[in-house]
Amino acid sequence: MVHNFNAGPSILPKEVFQAASEAILNYNNMGLSILEIGHRTDAFQAVMDEARSLVKELMQLNDQKEVLFLHGGASTQFFQVPMNLLAADRKAAYLDGGTWGVKAIKDAKLYGTVEVVASSKDKNYSYIPDGYTIPNDAAYFHYTTNNTVEGTQMHSIPETNVPLVADMSSDILSTQMDFNRFSLIYAGAQKNIGAAGVNLVIVDPSILGKADRALPTMMDYREHIKNGSMLNTPPVFAVYVCMLTLRWLKQQGGVAAIQQINEKKAQLLYDTIDQNSIYTAPVAKKDRSRMNAVFTIQDTEVEKEFLTAAKAEGFYGVKGHRSVGGFRISMYNALPYESVVTLTEFMKEFATKKG
Amino acid sequence: MVHNFNAGPSILPKEVFQAASEAILNYNNMGLSILEIGHRTDAFQAVMDEARSLVKELMQLNDQKEVLFLHGGASTQFFQVPMNLLAADRKAAYLDGGTWGVKAIKDAKLYGTVEVVASSKDKNYSYIPDGYTIPNDAAYFHYTTNNTVEGTQMHSIPETNVPLVADMSSDILSTQMDFNRFSLIYAGAQKNIGAAGVNLVIVDPSILGKADRALPTMMDYREHIKNGSMLNTPPVFAVYVCMLTLRWLKQQGGVAAIQQINEKKAQLLYDTIDQNSIYTAPVAKKDRSRMNAVFTIQDTEVEKEFLTAAKAEGFYGVKGHRSVGGFRISMYNALPYESVVTLTEFMKEFATKKG
Repeated sequence: MVHNFNAGPSILPKEVFQAASEAILNYNNMGLSILEIGHRTDAFQAVMDEARSLVKELMQLNDQKEVLFLHGGASTQFFQVPMNLLAADRKAAYLDGGTWGVKAIKDAKLYGTVEVVASSKDKNYSYIPDGYTIPNDAAYFHYTTNNTVEGTQMHSIPETNVPLVADMSSDILSTQMDFNRFSLIYAGAQKNIGAAGVNLVIVDPSILGKADRALPTMMDYREHIKNGSMLNTPPVFAVYVCMLTLRWLKQQGGVAAIQQINEKKAQLLYDTIDQNSIYTAPVAKKDRSRMNAVFTIQDTEVEKEFLTAAKAEGFYGVKGHRSVGGFRISMYNALPYESVVTLTEFMKEFATKKG
Repeated sequence: MVHNFNAGPSILPKEVFQAASEAILNYNNMGLSILEIGHRTDAFQAVMDEARSLVKELMQLNDQKEVLFLHGGASTQFFQVPMNLLAADRKAAYLDGGTWGVKAIKDAKLYGTVEVVASSKDKNYSYIPDGYTIPNDAAYFHYTTNNTVEGTQMHSIPETNVPLVADMSSDILSTQMDFNRFSLIYAGAQKNIGAAGVNLVIVDPSILGKADRALPTMMDYREHIKNGSMLNTPPVFAVYVCMLTLRWLKQQGGVAAIQQINEKKAQLLYDTIDQNSIYTAPVAKKDRSRMNAVFTIQDTEVEKEFLTAAKAEGFYGVKGHRSVGGFRISMYNALPYESVVTLTEFMKEFATKKG
C-alpha cells in the first residue's frame, strides 16, 4: 500500500484515475480516445464547459468572474499578471512570503514599480508577515496564499481597497473563503485541481485593459475570455482530469466538507510533531500550512534513517523541497485521512524507538 | 470501426493509448499513477530524458541543438520567438503563407520590424509563394512548413544565410529533411509528436542572448535549457505521451520509414480527388500537403450529404476548418494506410452515385 504525500504533481482521487484511464481507451463510447478528439468538438466543449462551471459553483463565484484554463503553469502568471495589470508608470504591492513570491516579484519588476510591503526572508520565510500597510495607490496587491516549499499559509484575507491578486496554487479549493474578494486568482492544477499541465485563472474583467501596453495574443486575458478559454488548442486531457477532480470534490460535499477533513488531517499531523520532541516544526504556529507540513529531525543520521524507514513503509514524497531539506508532508484534498493516521502511527513508533 | 482524420488533437498509435491508459492506473509497477508522481523523481526524469533523446535521434540533430518540451502550444512561440531573437532595432523576415503565419507575424511586430517577404493571401493561401528574396540583414527568417488549415506544405528548405525559424506543428517527423539547417524549430505536440498540452522547441543556443531585452523567466529559452526543460512543473503526462509516441515512431523505422507510408497515403487520396470530378482540390498541385488534404464539393447540398454519409461510415474529423469550409483529411503519422483505403473507396462510391 502506497501513501502519496508528494507536493505536486500529487495524489488525485482513485475515481479520477479510473475514469481517466478508461477515457484514454474509449471516451464516452465514441470509439475514440480522449487524447485524439478535436478540441472544437461537442465532446470536448462539454468537458471545458463543465470544468469552468464547476469552478464557479464550488468557489461560489459571482457572475462577474471569468474562469479560464490556461497553459504555462503558475510560473507563467508571474509575468502575465503584471504584463496585463501593471502600467509602466505605476506600482504594484507584493508580499515577500516565500519561494514563489520571490519569483513573482522578480518578473513583475520588468513591467513597472514593485513595492514589497513586507518580507519574512529574515527567518527563512518560516512565518507570514503581518502589520504591514498596502499603499492605496498600488495597481494591485499580490500574495501567495500557501507556501508549498516553506509550509506556511495565510489564514485570512488582507484588508485593503486595492485589487487583490493571489497565487493559490497549493491551497485553492481546500478552505472556504470569499473568493469574490479577489480580482485575479491563479493556480497550477497539479495539487488540488487536477494533473500537471494546466493552470486555472479566475479574473474579474473590470481590472483588464488599464495597463497601456501592447500584449502578445496568448498573454492577453481578454483574448482568452473572448474565446471561451479556447484561444488555441487547450491541454485537452489536463482539462478533462480537472473536470473529473472537480466533480469528485462536489460529490464529497464541496469546499466546506473537504475543509473539515483537511483540518482534521493537519491537526493530527501537527499534534504528532508537537508531542514527539524528536520532530521540530520550524514554522510559526499561527502560520502553519494545512496543505504542506514541514518538520526536521536534528540528528542528520536519524533523519536518513527516518527517510529509509518511511520509504520501506510505502510513504511516498515525504522528503522536503531540495532547497530546504528535512521533511514535507503534503495533505491535499485527495489525500485520505487514513494516510495521515498511518503516517502518524509510524512517526510515533519511530520517535519512541529513537527517544 | 472509427477512422480518425481529425486535424489535431488527432489520432495516435493504439499502442500509445494502451500504455498511457495503464500508466494512469499503475506506472511502472510503482503502485502510483503517472498523474501523481513528482516531476523531480527519477521515474519522471527518465521519461523526460528519453523523450528529449528520441527527438535528437529521430531528427538526427547535431550535438549543438537543445531539445525542450515547453508549455503554451505553438501559439506561445509566436511571441516567444521574436521576444528572444528580434531586437527592437532589427528586422525579421516572415513568409505569409497561411493562418498560422498571419498570427506569428502579428505578434512579431510587437518586438521589432517585420518584413513580409512574400504572401499567398491573394489566392486564399492556396499555394506556397516562391521567387522571393530573404534580406541578408534579417535577424531570422520565419515560415510555417505545413499549413494545417489551407492544406499546403513546403517541400523544400529555402536557401538563405539568415537563421531559419520554422513552425513545424503539423508536419514535424513526417518527412526526412536536414533539421540541422534550422536555428529554431517549434511544434505543438498534438499532431505527430503526442497529445495536446505540450510544445516541442529545438533551438541552437548560439542564436540566443542577442536581442537586448529583459525577458520574463518563463519566456527565456536559456533558462529552460539551463534547467533541462524543467524550469517549472512540466506537463508530465503530455511529455510521457510524447515519449511513447516517439518510441513507436522509432519502432516503425523512424522518419524515413514513416515518410514512405505518408507518401503512399497522400498519393492515394489525391489520386481519388483528381480522378473524380465531383471533388475539387483548391491547392496548387506542387504545394499539396501530405498531412492535410483539403477538397470541396461544389453543390452545397451534396456536400452536406457527403458529410452525413461519411459520419455514418465512421469517418471522424473530415469537416474542413471552420474558417474555410469543405473537407479536410488529416493523415498524420499514426493514421493507418488502411483508413485512407477505406475512405477513398467510400469517396469513389459516393462520386459514382452522384456522378
